Amino acid sequence: MKFELTILGSSGAMPFKDRFPTAQVLNVHEQLFLLDCAEGTQMRMSRFRIKRGKIHHIFITHLHGDHIFGLPGLLTSLAMNLRTEPLHIYSPPGLKNMIDGLFPDGEKGPPFPLHYHELDTSQSQKIFENKALTVYTIPLSHGIDCNGYLFREKEMPRKMRKEKIEEYNIPYQDIPKIKEGEDWKDANGHIIPNHELTEKAPSPRSFAFCTDTSYNEEIIPLIKGVDLLYHEATFLHEDLDKAVKTNHSTVTQAAQIASKAHVGKLIMGHYSARYETLDRHLEEAKAVFPNSYLGYDGAQFEIFLKK
Amino acid sequence: MKFELTILGSSGAMPFKDRFPTAQVLNVHEQLFLLDCAEGTQMRMSRFRIKRGKIHHIFITHLHGDHIFGLPGLLTSLAMNLRTEPLHIYSPPGLKNMIDGLFPDGEKGPPFPLHYHELDTSQSQKIFENKALTVYTIPLSHGIDCNGYLFREKEMPRKMRKEKIEEYNIPYQDIPKIKEGEDWKDANGHIIPNHELTEKAPSPRSFAFCTDTSYNEEIIPLIKGVDLLYHEATFLHEDLDKAVKTNHSTVTQAAQIASKAHVGKLIMGHYSARYETLDRHLEEAKAVFPNSYLGYDGAQFEIFLKK
Repeated sequence: MKFELTILGSSGAMPFKDRFPTAQVLNVHEQLFLLDCAEGTQMRMSRFRIKRGKIHHIFITHLHGDHIFGLPGLLTSLAMNLRTEPLHIYSPPGLKNMIDGLFPDGEKGPPFPLHYHELDTSQSQKIFENKALTVYTIPLSHGIDCNGYLFREKEMPRKMRKEKIEEYNIPYQDIPKIKEGEDWKDANGHIIPNHELTEKAPSPRSFAFCTDTSYNEEIIPLIKGVDLLYHEATFLHEDLDKAVKTNHSTVTQAAQIASKAHVGKLIMGHYSARYETLDRHLEEAKAVFPNSYLGYDGAQFEIFLKK
Repeated sequence: MKFELTILGSSGAMPFKDRFPTAQVLNVHEQLFLLDCAEGTQMRMSRFRIKRGKIHHIFITHLHGDHIFGLPGLLTSLAMNLRTEPLHIYSPPGLKNMIDGLFPDGEKGPPFPLHYHELDTSQSQKIFENKALTVYTIPLSHGIDCNGYLFREKEMPRKMRKEKIEEYNIPYQDIPKIKEGEDWKDANGHIIPNHELTEKAPSPRSFAFCTDTSYNEEIIPLIKGVDLLYHEATFLHEDLDKAVKTNHSTVTQAAQIASKAHVGKLIMGHYSARYETLDRHLEEAKAVFPNSYLGYDGAQFEIFLKK
């Protein structure tokens, strides 16, 4: 039951050497969710062995080019691969028109159902749910309609102790209810309490994707206690003036949000091309929030199940 | 006096592993000309050390995504670099609307003059000229408005034999006319013939960029004798049916054009993603036209001056 983040691009608005602009893939139980889709995303997928055909949901934070210019090429390649499965794209309003304008009149649309979902970025909403997880938006402050995304794995059923099935000779059809927490009555009317038959389910895992945004404490209640927080860290704190001017965050600010929200781990990214190396970013973040990590193109962060 | 082609992307419509889609840079006397601009072009420039700021002219063959989806990102990065020099984009009609649609209303345009030049793809025309070269279009047959581009270096002036300047004590102001081919009269009225004072100028160099196109012998008179021909070779000849269906060429067809046009060297590219390796492409081409080469991402082909 995987819960793993792959960074496809860790750069800010401009690509810089080996850093492509923003895109990430979250693997939840082998379902892939694409987060933002900057130029080069499909090449990064190929490079890091992410199968584009396995993506059914794309979550776009905002309509700046460095978060969407990879969509036209990705959609074209999916069409050329003769995809038939539907694809859902979630974003602030206006994306469909931008993309449609790139495919001249008379060209036929993609051979698969393509659904655009326009989001209200003013408040947090539940926008997606399946058996494994629920996705919520996180309103961000970037001077343009913009929201992050919060992925919460659902509570899993309690786990059967296999040795108890044999010991009490429990019939197969009774197991689902036991997993849901019910006690079990044997043939003699003897009640075996659930806690003897099952183990606690592992804790649900969670990931919050917060880019692009200026420092914004309003997101803290929404992301409180997530296992993994990706928060943009475009500038070092010595360049705070630039962060303020461009509605971005500094490393220190990202780490302050991580610290105040008591998250498990902070992943940084969206680095400005002004920084050739990132050693100082890591140092600056760890001074505020020790469990900070640099996101880089190809980096993977897996959250393991814990009891 | 450089005349050098760099392949930025050698793939066909879909990127495949290390092959990005079409883009090339021609360096003529340290002026850079960008040919097509597929997704990832700006990353390829960075990777292969091509300075994007040195590009003033972009030549687009046609408006299919795999030849233009890198433009929005490139323009954004040039704007972020605070470019002030003008940029000229040549293409079949319709490009400006497609690109403008990606930059939402209210966002200010690029901070540099951006000139779109719409081309009539039905006939070859001279579309650009400067001190060093002339650029012509090459009508291609791809089922959509499409033209290639022919770059012809201009005749250079004859070269002074330096020892003759000393021998006859030729004054500095007389040299430009001698380089243009005039004889020279010394103080005694003695005429020194030009061929004694100068050497023949090196032959002008030429490059033809032909993509995307089905087999089309009509281009042969236009590209006759060019030093370097880039011709798309999307399919092996065993897949001729696919080439015909999609208005592309096979390797054999590209080599036949090269052979009939008596070009110096054939460079292939725009390979379909169906081919993992390209050994058979090279073999197939060489059987028809021995001086054939595989274009690959990062490959450079320099044409040296010859007398």
